[in-house]
Amino acid sequence: MSVLATSRRVRRTPFSDGVEAAGVTAYSVYNRMLLPASFRSLEEDYHHLKEAVQLWDVACERQVELRGPDAGRLMQMLTPRDLRGMLPGQCYYVPIVDETGGMLNDPVAVKLAEDRWWISIADSDLLLWAKGVAQGFRLDVLVDEPDVSPLAIQGPRADDLVARVFGDGVRDLRFFRFGYFDFQGHYLVVARSGYSKQGGFEIYVHDADIGMPLWNALMEAGRDLDVRAGCPNGIERIEGGLLSYGNDMTLANTPHECGLGRFCDTLTAVGCIGRDALLRVAREGPVQQVRPIAIAGDTLPLCDRPWPLMAAGKRVGQVTSAAMSPDFGGGVAIGMVRMTHWEPDTELQVMTQDGPRDAVVRDRFWIE
Amino acid sequence: MSVLATSRRVRRTPFSDGVEAAGVTAYSVYNRMLLPASFRSLEEDYHHLKEAVQLWDVACERQVELRGPDAGRLMQMLTPRDLRGMLPGQCYYVPIVDETGGMLNDPVAVKLAEDRWWISIADSDLLLWAKGVAQGFRLDVLVDEPDVSPLAIQGPRADDLVARVFGDGVRDLRFFRFGYFDFQGHYLVVARSGYSKQGGFEIYVHDADIGMPLWNALMEAGRDLDVRAGCPNGIERIEGGLLSYGNDMTLANTPHECGLGRFCDTLTAVGCIGRDALLRVAREGPVQQVRPIAIAGDTLPLCDRPWPLMAAGKRVGQVTSAAMSPDFGGGVAIGMVRMTHWEPDTELQVMTQDGPRDAVVRDRFWIE
Repeated sequence: MSVLATSRRVRRTPFSDGVEAAGVTAYSVYNRMLLPASFRSLEEDYHHLKEAVQLWDVACERQVELRGPDAGRLMQMLTPRDLRGMLPGQCYYVPIVDETGGMLNDPVAVKLAEDRWWISIADSDLLLWAKGVAQGFRLDVLVDEPDVSPLAIQGPRADDLVARVFGDGVRDLRFFRFGYFDFQGHYLVVARSGYSKQGGFEIYVHDADIGMPLWNALMEAGRDLDVRAGCPNGIERIEGGLLSYGNDMTLANTPHECGLGRFCDTLTAVGCIGRDALLRVAREGPVQQVRPIAIAGDTLPLCDRPWPLMAAGKRVGQVTSAAMSPDFGGGVAIGMVRMTHWEPDTELQVMTQDGPRDAVVRDRFWIE
Repeated sequence: MSVLATSRRVRRTPFSDGVEAAGVTAYSVYNRMLLPASFRSLEEDYHHLKEAVQLWDVACERQVELRGPDAGRLMQMLTPRDLRGMLPGQCYYVPIVDETGGMLNDPVAVKLAEDRWWISIADSDLLLWAKGVAQGFRLDVLVDEPDVSPLAIQGPRADDLVARVFGDGVRDLRFFRFGYFDFQGHYLVVARSGYSKQGGFEIYVHDADIGMPLWNALMEAGRDLDVRAGCPNGIERIEGGLLSYGNDMTLANTPHECGLGRFCDTLTAVGCIGRDALLRVAREGPVQQVRPIAIAGDTLPLCDRPWPLMAAGKRVGQVTSAAMSPDFGGGVAIGMVRMTHWEPDTELQVMTQDGPRDAVVRDRFWIE
């Protein structure tokens, strides 16, 4: 663990005052913004997330707004997922690819209207790709970053908490749908979504000035629910197989390698910039793919670099996220494995910075 | 100060092992990569930088490589600086702007050949803008991030140190020129440049595998020069008026606001995407501009957010970088000030998170 030197360049969020008051103990930096990484401890936060409810400052999931007559056309150019059936009020998880089919981001697209979209991004400046494409193709669309900061409420008691502040209507939201709900006269987009397997919501806080009032209202309303400040939990998200852009996939990977082939409609996504390259991949199949990996042993160092996966002295892949799991025992990990060794139960060695460990390919992640 | 949680997403560099062995005490994150921020202390590092010589791991200044028949055309599309007179072997500081003239980055362009450029970037994914523009305009150019990691050698003894490892030929390099110099059979680009006012070089380490051999060779060769690991120093760079993208300027600012009008040839930079918008700015002049600001008092909190600049109860600008200066006394700062209050000796108040301080606009930075 090292100290993080702060500056304006690493942006604070509308919720930073609340996060600090709640005793944040570690940060990561995500989209050049502070992302809380730990409060009590990774393990204590993990147990609490699975039992109660947490507020997550995920303002770093910045929005790219597309607005104008060509907004829908641009959105389809960015992703191989066929968007023709998507309605306002829906959220889609969309791989974003370049002309070679390499992953540029894996955001959630929020369709506000036919001519207005938010793209809630993972850790890369998707704004610049979208702006460059819009400019080059002379599209009739405005592309910018609005003053919108997501606040996630995650955990089994999320419905109860959010209903207390926004009304019981939120309980009827289906997964990856959103509605507009009132908070002190502001109609906010509230979606049933979030980066955990424990259920919950993401509130798109439009106007930084209501960030702390909303944070405080939720904290107050959830006192008897044991609401706490939390953050995306590295253990729980690995158990659930939730990939992290920059960790488990980069520009070097296709969606198919990342197990996201089901989001690639390469036959029908007309206009998608990477469609031709991905059609080829879809036909031939990837030669490496993301797999759940169990790692033996009682401890693991921090997975702060790719760990080579070896078989009979040859490199056959790499682990890019790993943690010790209190609930499932042993090390849980996400790796990219070559097809020669990706079958379940294949035994491998993973080379950590503290030495080799025995590992085995699993058939599924720990939480469905 | 907070703890930085590490993961593969925040990339290590080819020099990270050396940085850790040298006892790094704080990091920032820059282009999703580790950037050392302190070794002994900000003040001790500062004095040493001005007296001796330091190795800086600035691998986070990633390169965007443009390669192909349209490389020069794309480069000119990105910047309002007229590149027609630029020769291979030269480095140019180039503002990069979008179609509205907003700053996307302020990198150094390295012209390797007529059809091959490196853009050594500040903290934004310029790769995605360049790729998007190339794609949209169907340019005949490859755009990617090569395996090149800059290592800076800065300080008054930099010439002596670099000459010991690369030969006396490096002494003849003029400012912002580069040559190819041998290290263990690798011909590396060595430029006279760097993010301090103390002089020195940047070595474009092409091939991560020679990162640590080069680091160790320089450390060994400079032992009697008191070479140490260092990093861009927040105090020294403010004294020298070196702006920081993300701190002192963002997409919201034009180059003219940032005092970079002399790098904008809006009459002749034909093809630059933001040229039309900037021609307007160049004619009318900016309504706010970067200024050196002296702040009274004996201490300052961390400038981790914009500090409003006030005059007679009205906001007239903001400070975005600030530190206490051992050599010049008092607080040194960089601010953006409205034209009504930007004249030298104008007295203002700066609103820090610890309360207001008296401040005054200066006519020049502390180090020329």
